[in-house]
Amino acid sequence: MLPVVPRTARRSRKMLACAALLAVQFAADPAAAQSSDWSDADLATAAALRDRALKGSSAFDHVSSLVTEVGPRPAGSAGDEAAVRWAMNRLGKLGFSAVRSQDVLVPRWIRGSAEVILLGPSPQPLVAAALGGSIGTGEEGIESQVIEVASLDALGTLPAGAVKDKIVFINERMERLRDGAGYSKTVKNRTKGASIAANLGAAALVIRSVGTSDDRFAHTGRIQYDLSAPRIPAFAIANPDADALSRQLKASKQVRLRLKSTARELPSTWSANVIGEIPGTERANEIVLLAAHLDSWDLGQGAVDDGAGVAIVVEAARLISKLERKPARTLRVVLFANEEFGVSGGQEYARLIGDELGRHVIAMEADSGVGPVWRLDSQVAPAALGSLETMRKIMPLTVEAGDNAASGGTDIGPIRDLGVPILDPMFDMTTYFDVHHTLNDTLAKVDAKVLDQTVAAYAVAAYLAATKQGDFGRLAPVPLNR
Amino acid sequence: MLPVVPRTARRSRKMLACAALLAVQFAADPAAAQSSDWSDADLATAAALRDRALKGSSAFDHVSSLVTEVGPRPAGSAGDEAAVRWAMNRLGKLGFSAVRSQDVLVPRWIRGSAEVILLGPSPQPLVAAALGGSIGTGEEGIESQVIEVASLDALGTLPAGAVKDKIVFINERMERLRDGAGYSKTVKNRTKGASIAANLGAAALVIRSVGTSDDRFAHTGRIQYDLSAPRIPAFAIANPDADALSRQLKASKQVRLRLKSTARELPSTWSANVIGEIPGTERANEIVLLAAHLDSWDLGQGAVDDGAGVAIVVEAARLISKLERKPARTLRVVLFANEEFGVSGGQEYARLIGDELGRHVIAMEADSGVGPVWRLDSQVAPAALGSLETMRKIMPLTVEAGDNAASGGTDIGPIRDLGVPILDPMFDMTTYFDVHHTLNDTLAKVDAKVLDQTVAAYAVAAYLAATKQGDFGRLAPVPLNR
Repeated sequence: MLPVVPRTARRSRKMLACAALLAVQFAADPAAAQSSDWSDADLATAAALRDRALKGSSAFDHVSSLVTEVGPRPAGSAGDEAAVRWAMNRLGKLGFSAVRSQDVLVPRWIRGSAEVILLGPSPQPLVAAALGGSIGTGEEGIESQVIEVASLDALGTLPAGAVKDKIVFINERMERLRDGAGYSKTVKNRTKGASIAANLGAAALVIRSVGTSDDRFAHTGRIQYDLSAPRIPAFAIANPDADALSRQLKASKQVRLRLKSTARELPSTWSANVIGEIPGTERANEIVLLAAHLDSWDLGQGAVDDGAGVAIVVEAARLISKLERKPARTLRVVLFANEEFGVSGGQEYARLIGDELGRHVIAMEADSGVGPVWRLDSQVAPAALGSLETMRKIMPLTVEAGDNAASGGTDIGPIRDLGVPILDPMFDMTTYFDVHHTLNDTLAKVDAKVLDQTVAAYAVAAYLAATKQGDFGRLAPVPLNR
Repeated sequence: MLPVVPRTARRSRKMLACAALLAVQFAADPAAAQSSDWSDADLATAAALRDRALKGSSAFDHVSSLVTEVGPRPAGSAGDEAAVRWAMNRLGKLGFSAVRSQDVLVPRWIRGSAEVILLGPSPQPLVAAALGGSIGTGEEGIESQVIEVASLDALGTLPAGAVKDKIVFINERMERLRDGAGYSKTVKNRTKGASIAANLGAAALVIRSVGTSDDRFAHTGRIQYDLSAPRIPAFAIANPDADALSRQLKASKQVRLRLKSTARELPSTWSANVIGEIPGTERANEIVLLAAHLDSWDLGQGAVDDGAGVAIVVEAARLISKLERKPARTLRVVLFANEEFGVSGGQEYARLIGDELGRHVIAMEADSGVGPVWRLDSQVAPAALGSLETMRKIMPLTVEAGDNAASGGTDIGPIRDLGVPILDPMFDMTTYFDVHHTLNDTLAKVDAKVLDQTVAAYAVAAYLAATKQGDFGRLAPVPLNR
C-alpha cells in the first residue's frame, strides 16, 4: 500500500458526520433496500458464502505459496518476473477464465547496501534502509553533523543556512491507530523530506521510520523527489535507532553520522498485470473488479503487503466460482504490477481501459494487510448507499458502517479518477505498520483465521456487487491535471 | 546470560518437590525465622527500601546511560573499553567506595559480515548471524545442499555419509516459558551442533535461532567447538527464515544454500571487572556480592543483556547506601568482564579471590533480563532456608517460594563452585528470549516500572543478606576437573 494520503485528505469531518447520518437512515430501513436490489436467494447465497469462508478458506495457502515459491518481488526484479509466472499458473490452476497478462513498463531501482553509523567514542551502527528511489552516496559516503527537527513543518522554520551541508534528521513518531491514519500524517517525511531538505542545502536526509514497531526494522517506501530540488540520499532508521540518535543529540550538540548507500537506478524494464475472470451469467459484460498488487518491497517476503491482498481477492473470487448460483456480472481479478514504486500497473490498466470503462460497475482492492475488516467504506452514488447497508449486514459481524468518501486502494485510483465507484472494506491496521515495508513482512505475520474473516467480507461484497439489480452510479471524473 | 544448562540440569523433579515442601513448612512459621535473624528495625527498613524502589528508582537512567554513552560492548572491543570507563565513573559518581578494576584477559572475536542465501529460481537472502566464535567461510564461501534435521539427537541417527560436504540445518523451535527452560533444551544446538555436524563430515551448520521471537532477528551466542572435531562455520537464522527454508525443503528435496562469513579471531586482549562497594558497619569484612556483566553481544545495544542487570545491582546497592540504618556487612558490586564469550571475568575473580573466599557470605547475580522477579530460588545450607522465607515475604508481592537448587548467574558460577552460597531471584523470562543475543536488544525493551520491581526485590535480598545475624552456610566445593 502506498499513499493513504489522498484518501484521508478527501474525508473531512463534515463528510464523516454526513456518512454517520446516512448510515443511521439506512439502518432504519434495510428491508426496502433488500427487496429492490437482490432476491432472497441472492442474499441467502451471500450469507452461505460468508459462512463457507469463515469455516476455513485457502487464502493462507495462496500467500504461503507466493512467498515460498517467489519471495520478495520488487518491480522489475527476477522475483517480480517469477511472481507474474506464479500468478498466471495459480489463476489457471484455480479455474479462472481468460487468464492473461498485460505488459507494464516499470522503473527499476536497486537498493544495494545502506550504512548509517552514529559516530562517537564508540561508533554504533544504526539499523537503516535507503528510501525507495534514493540516489546513492558514492563510494566515499557522507559524513556530517546531524540537525534534528521534530517534523517537516519544523524543518521549514529553521534559519537560513542552518542545515547547509548537514544531515537533516526528522524525528517524528508515527501514531498507532486502528484506521492507519497515523501513516498519512508522517509519510510526507518520507515522500517530501528529501527535496525540502535539499532545497535548504542539506547533504542528506535521515528520518525516523514511518512505522509503529519498537523493533529494529527500518521502513522503506518511495521518495517523491521534486524536480526543482537537487537529489540527496535519504534513509530511514528504525524506531529504537531514532531513539538512540535522539538521546545522543540530547546529551551533546555535536553528533555526527557517516552514511553510505550503493543505491542506484537501472533502465526501466517490463513487468505485467495479471488478470483472471469468473464469468458472469446474464450480465457477463459488466465487470466487478477485485484488485491487489503482485509486487512487493525488496526487504521482506511481501506476505502482508500485498501477498495477503492477492490471497484475499483470489480466494474470494474462487469461492464465488464454486457456487451453484453464479453471479450475473463478471468478477475480474487484477493483480497489478508495481504498486510500490509508482503505481505503473494501475496507470497502465486505466490507460488501456477504452470501451471497457463504462462496463466497470465497481472496483475494490485489498492492500492494507491481513485484516480483519471492521468497517465498510465506499465512494458510490448516494442512491446506492442503502444497498451497501444490506451488504454490510451480511458481512461478518464485526463490520461497522463507514463513510462514502473512500479512495480505495492505490491501484484502482486511476480508474476511480475516471469515474468507477469504489467499495472499500477497511482493515484493522493497528499492527499493520509494525511490518509494512520492512524486512519483517513475513508469513509469520499472517493469521489464517483473520485472513478468512477478510476473505468472507470480500466474498460477500463481491458477490452482492455482482448480483445487484441496479448499479452504483458513476463518480465525477477527476481532471488529469489536478 | 549464557548457560542456563547446568542450573536446570541440577534441579530434579524430586528437588522441586522437596523445595515445595520446605516452602510450606517455613511459610507456616515465619515468625520463628524472623526473630532469630533480624531485628524488627531491620525488617522494617527492608520493607521501606522495597517501597522506595517501587516508587521509582534510577535503574532506567543507569541502563539508558550505558547504552547511550557506550552501546554494544563485546569483549575486547572499543565499546568494552568504553564500558569499563563508564562503570568506573558511574560507580564513583554514585558514591560507591573502593571503586577499582581488575584486569581480565579476554578472547577477541570479530563477527564480520554474514550471508545466508536460499538459492532457487529467485534467490532469497535469509536473516542470519554467525554464531559467536565461528570460523569464517573464506572469500569463496560455501555452497551446498541442505539436510534438515529436527534436533541434535536426530542428527546423530543419520546414516553414514548422509551429511558429507552438506550443510546441516537443525530446525528445532525453542519453547516460550516463564522460567526460560526452553533455552536449556535447545541451546545445545548452538553450543555443540557445529562439532557434531563436523564429525559427520558436514561443510557447515545452520540452526534455527535459539529464541522465541517470530520477528526476523537471528540469535547469536557462543559455540563450544570440540577440540577433537574439525571447525566448520556455523550460523543461526531467524525463526521466520527457518520457516521459509523448511517450507522450501518440504516442496523440494534439493535445496541449496550459499553461505559467506568473514568472522575471525584476533589475539586476546585486556578488559576488566569493575568493582565498587557500600561498606558495612560492624561486620564490614564480610561480603555480600552483587553481580552483573558489563560486556554484551555486538549485535544489539545490550540493554536487556545485561545493561538491565548492571542497572539492577548498582541501583539496589545505591538505594541501600542512602539508608540511615546501614547494613552490618559490605555490599560488593562486581560488574564482570566477558560473560558472553567464556566467563573470563568470573573465572579471574575466583582465581584471585584468595583469603577473601571465606568472607564471601553469599552471592547473587542479575542476568536474566528486566524482570519482574516472580520466585526466590537459592542454593544455601538447609538451616538458612527459613530466613529466606522471611526475606521473600518482604519482597514485592509477586515473589513466590522457589527451590534450593539454583546455580545463580554464570559469572558467580566459579565462586559458587568454591563454596559460596547463592541467592537467585528468578526473572519472568516469558519474553526475554525474544530479544536475548539479537540486534533487537535495545532500550525500547526495558520497562522502567518492571525494572523498579526487580530493583526492589534485589535491594530487599541484599539488605537482609547484609544484616542477617547468622550466615548462609557453605556449599560443597565442586572439584575442578568435573
